[in-house]
Amino acid sequence: MKQAVQETGVRDLAMARPAVARDRSASRRANLSMVLRLLREEGPRSRARIAQVTGLPKATISNLTAELLDGGLVREGDTERDRTVLGRPGQAVEVDGRGVHGLGAEINVDYISLLALDLRGEVTFEERTPLDVRAAGPESTLRTVARLAEDALAALRGAGGHVVGVTLATPGAVDMDAGTVKYASNIGWREVPALAELRAHLGPDAPELHLENDAKLGALAEYVQVSADNVRDLVFVTGQTGVGVGIIVGGQLVRGAGGYAGEIGHLRLVPSDEPCACGRRGCWETTVGRGALLRYAVDPSDMVCDPTIDLGRRLADLRNRAQSGDPRTLDALSRIADHLAPGLALLADILNPRQLVLGGHFAAFGGHLLDAVTTRVHEMVMAPAAGGCEIVLSQLGLTGTPRGGALLALDAVYQDPTAVIAKTWG
Amino acid sequence: MKQAVQETGVRDLAMARPAVARDRSASRRANLSMVLRLLREEGPRSRARIAQVTGLPKATISNLTAELLDGGLVREGDTERDRTVLGRPGQAVEVDGRGVHGLGAEINVDYISLLALDLRGEVTFEERTPLDVRAAGPESTLRTVARLAEDALAALRGAGGHVVGVTLATPGAVDMDAGTVKYASNIGWREVPALAELRAHLGPDAPELHLENDAKLGALAEYVQVSADNVRDLVFVTGQTGVGVGIIVGGQLVRGAGGYAGEIGHLRLVPSDEPCACGRRGCWETTVGRGALLRYAVDPSDMVCDPTIDLGRRLADLRNRAQSGDPRTLDALSRIADHLAPGLALLADILNPRQLVLGGHFAAFGGHLLDAVTTRVHEMVMAPAAGGCEIVLSQLGLTGTPRGGALLALDAVYQDPTAVIAKTWG
Repeated sequence: MKQAVQETGVRDLAMARPAVARDRSASRRANLSMVLRLLREEGPRSRARIAQVTGLPKATISNLTAELLDGGLVREGDTERDRTVLGRPGQAVEVDGRGVHGLGAEINVDYISLLALDLRGEVTFEERTPLDVRAAGPESTLRTVARLAEDALAALRGAGGHVVGVTLATPGAVDMDAGTVKYASNIGWREVPALAELRAHLGPDAPELHLENDAKLGALAEYVQVSADNVRDLVFVTGQTGVGVGIIVGGQLVRGAGGYAGEIGHLRLVPSDEPCACGRRGCWETTVGRGALLRYAVDPSDMVCDPTIDLGRRLADLRNRAQSGDPRTLDALSRIADHLAPGLALLADILNPRQLVLGGHFAAFGGHLLDAVTTRVHEMVMAPAAGGCEIVLSQLGLTGTPRGGALLALDAVYQDPTAVIAKTWG
Repeated sequence: MKQAVQETGVRDLAMARPAVARDRSASRRANLSMVLRLLREEGPRSRARIAQVTGLPKATISNLTAELLDGGLVREGDTERDRTVLGRPGQAVEVDGRGVHGLGAEINVDYISLLALDLRGEVTFEERTPLDVRAAGPESTLRTVARLAEDALAALRGAGGHVVGVTLATPGAVDMDAGTVKYASNIGWREVPALAELRAHLGPDAPELHLENDAKLGALAEYVQVSADNVRDLVFVTGQTGVGVGIIVGGQLVRGAGGYAGEIGHLRLVPSDEPCACGRRGCWETTVGRGALLRYAVDPSDMVCDPTIDLGRRLADLRNRAQSGDPRTLDALSRIADHLAPGLALLADILNPRQLVLGGHFAAFGGHLLDAVTTRVHEMVMAPAAGGCEIVLSQLGLTGTPRGGALLALDAVYQDPTAVIAKTWG
């Protein structure tokens, strides 16, 4: 999870304000947070180098790392020979937190997916269950999510872990602060108070609960994958029944003023009269979404259309058909590529990201889709060489969104390590 | 130029790293910068409150403000009764810098526009000259810009001012670091080393030179206008022969990985077969740009098409026709509104800004255009109530881009006040 920290240059008109230390405990909290985030962003380093970078005295850094060590959030790492600090080589400190977990729970059109990460970024729980969410309705779906989350919490807590938060992910427009799904056309939800219902099911012992849109969480998960390569600007394109994007600019998730950024699926980008779940016709997602892929590739009775079978298995089956040269599958992928390109070119023109990351079914077909799409996007984008934008396939399969949810839940620890230290070991 | 500083919350996964103070002069530079930026962002305040917010000792703040006072970058303001600090009321310090100027120079299709601001944000020089830039070609155009800039520099320096930098603005894709205009279809420039040529004309006494795209600078100028209202996310839409956007997200200008963000003008958003300067057909800007407005509104022989007449005068003439109810002008504006709406809706769907700010000829017609566009955008955007996005008209007329250029040049002072202090008064 190493990440280069960008220098504030002449073009950066905004300002980072130093933390206001109103009292000693607030100052301690801010400093613990600063040290822990430094180790996340820049990797293991000695106390001397932490002191150097933060500008805090070495004695203060020793006290802070001792607290983080006691709390199990960091551990002693390898000895490092530090060329920038005189004196003896120091022992590096690194993020640990193997007892601290965040849980992501994704509701999608035909499955529920849960995934937990510990503070090191290791997967500590994973489950995906087929469910016809539209048919089940919000109440029953949220009851199922709560049951699956309770199982996950029990497993993680049973192994001695502390779960700091659960992030619920849904498609569509969500009000993060109110915990409400405003409108998600593909699952038929409108004004669903999802977080309140989940909280009622999970009871008073539940960790902190968050709600966020699936594409935004997918983008966070992709960003953590590539930030070590100094990629600071990326757009993640979900490949689901609905198609949305999550945007990272300068290392920051773009939520938009109301939290609604990334709604590209209902633009009219390709001539089409296909009816959309939103009630309009010809929306882009009806030409590139999973419904379009299945419509182009198979008959409705084909097993890959059966929502009771795990989506991963169904996509693997289609991929096999493409690899064995099945003409109808290849023709379907060619049509998807043709329809996908204008949307990707639009994103490259407007946002000029370093990477466009394709998820879901777009990622499942490797070069069959990627080569054709890349050629077309390069023809369409106005900037020279597509503005240096690289189109890549997500390596996270269907786990990106719940991973992003787990990361969002875990970020609370980085913002305030004392909450965990106090609760778990205090 | 007051601006609220956003708290770093749980959703902010990136990290602000404290300044590394490698030596005493670097530390002094960083602290002077911090104090000056604090006064810009948050307005006048007493030394005691500066000490409180920055966490630096009061004696240090006294020394820093004394240096900034000596350098003419701040001045003593009103006495403030500060409720958060015990003790006597303090005298506020505020940004002054009336002797320190930044200059913006815009090249557009049919004019050159220069504008200087001092550090307080007051206009200290302004000039706009009609020029058929495509016909003149890059060499002659840059010679004209240099001559106008020399006049401006002479005027500002003659009044005892210090000009810290000049920003050249052009339409199209620019390589800011190389100082090269990569491709600007509406003025017919391709791979023009604009900054090197300007530097050659201006000679060794020239201030620091910058190059940036016109829409991005326009967005900076608009952001400074509204940041006091806590608007942190806005998109500025240029209304010129070409149409591009400048994007501000979370108070930061979005440049894109290669600096090419904002290229919306060549998307196909409206059915059209109109030839575009880029060589394609049906690009959005051929349906909403100035060429489209004139094509819809007047015959080619009309005075409003005459590029030797100042554009401001020509737009004022068209506005008068709209206000007097001229049917052809009103019909033209109605068509522009119809074609503008899909592009604005697309930006609202993807970026969910708090404000969409319309510039150039879009801003010149007030309610004639705004009401129709707003209604249509609200019908088209997926998020409820257009995601809370407000469509507003720029109040800056044709000055936004050179204003943004002046602000970019002046930002060097905020990043390193010692350069100015040393040069002017050292």
